[in-house]
Amino acid sequence: MQKSYDEIQPQPTSLRFFTLFVVLSQILGVLVVVMVGVWMGHFHGGFGWMENPGLEFNYHPLFMVLGLVFLYGDAMLAYRVFRYERKLYIKIVHTCLHAGAIIFAAVGLKAVFDSHNLAKPKPIPNLYSWHAWMGLATVILFASQFVFGFVSYLWPKLSQNARELYMPLHRFWGMAIYVMAIATAFMGMIEKIGFIGLTSSLQDPERLLTNMLGLALLCLGLVVIYVVSHPDYKRQPLAEEQTLQLQEYQE
Amino acid sequence: MQKSYDEIQPQPTSLRFFTLFVVLSQILGVLVVVMVGVWMGHFHGGFGWMENPGLEFNYHPLFMVLGLVFLYGDAMLAYRVFRYERKLYIKIVHTCLHAGAIIFAAVGLKAVFDSHNLAKPKPIPNLYSWHAWMGLATVILFASQFVFGFVSYLWPKLSQNARELYMPLHRFWGMAIYVMAIATAFMGMIEKIGFIGLTSSLQDPERLLTNMLGLALLCLGLVVIYVVSHPDYKRQPLAEEQTLQLQEYQE
Repeated sequence: MQKSYDEIQPQPTSLRFFTLFVVLSQILGVLVVVMVGVWMGHFHGGFGWMENPGLEFNYHPLFMVLGLVFLYGDAMLAYRVFRYERKLYIKIVHTCLHAGAIIFAAVGLKAVFDSHNLAKPKPIPNLYSWHAWMGLATVILFASQFVFGFVSYLWPKLSQNARELYMPLHRFWGMAIYVMAIATAFMGMIEKIGFIGLTSSLQDPERLLTNMLGLALLCLGLVVIYVVSHPDYKRQPLAEEQTLQLQEYQE
Repeated sequence: MQKSYDEIQPQPTSLRFFTLFVVLSQILGVLVVVMVGVWMGHFHGGFGWMENPGLEFNYHPLFMVLGLVFLYGDAMLAYRVFRYERKLYIKIVHTCLHAGAIIFAAVGLKAVFDSHNLAKPKPIPNLYSWHAWMGLATVILFASQFVFGFVSYLWPKLSQNARELYMPLHRFWGMAIYVMAIATAFMGMIEKIGFIGLTSSLQDPERLLTNMLGLALLCLGLVVIYVVSHPDYKRQPLAEEQTLQLQEYQE
């Protein structure tokens, strides 16, 4: 359906505000990662590995946000930002950014499980809260989406018809899992604040930092989803791709 | 742009799974409201008004979810469910459901402010957490969207051209604010669990109930956004509406 529409109107897009939103997304993304880094690094004693489970925990929020929010968002934006590059190149960028996201998420998960299992004097239970359940669901859905996407679009590649049928679902779940990651980050923040018994005073610099982190995460999510879902910002097939698609279709 | 596409292909929609998803959304919506009701009613001593600020608080999660999740979702679904009714009727249903959502949200906000301000022996501070900030932002955006929508589409009504220009924004923010409401509900749940110091055991019925509530909220959000954003499920203008639009356009 979408295809015939594209054929009739090959360039209906208006890129007004596009660059502004993309720049904004990068500023917000870096800001979010820096704020999580400062929160854990400055207010919670910095970072450590397995010999120091308390400090190993601090990698958890940092790496989850770096992978499943920052890199994930940029992977989705790749098709919009590199709109005039060949599609295969963008696919590879999209895949590499997602692969990076998975690696950070995996290390981030190891950090939280270690920090629970190696805690002294006794281990802390795992996976009991809704933050943990939803986070786990998010990571599993993300990994499944990666595998499905890889098999369908990169290698061994499904038929043109199957790829077109799957695309709306790939797009819906891509955005849904991203939003789930941000919502899980919000919950993680609130849960951490509960554990450490933060004061309710806005004079408390940690309270202010976490609220600002929430605000930056919210704005980042809104900007990324707006850019990715806006039909005018959608990448249009290049002239040679349209010919190629037509050839494939006729074969 | 969308219009010319609609004109070319007046009925490209496939309503496969549509009824299933709508029924599922209603089951999940009722389930969410009942679970919040049981959580507050059974585990936290039931409901009260201003003479009992602790119990007045319990109306806060119940009414926010009833308004900004259940009624809000149904208001968005109205255009999909009543697809063969006249557009003005659906607009009125959409407006009434949103008006209901605003009323519940307002009472839900009063409940939390009262429970803080009237707390003994001394008041609890207001609006210090990111849950509170994001919740307030959600309510303010929701109310603004209601006013903009009312003025643009119902009374006094903007020109056809202005209404068409505003529609993609009305739709984007409609979905974004709904997702914000659900994310805020997740945070409220985690915050409440922190305040009451719930055990981390999944044997604890309250822990299990809140995790199930989270799961139901997540599934509800996914189903509603899927149905509302799916292009095939979009309501197509009725034959007489197309004629009317054309007349208006030619005037």
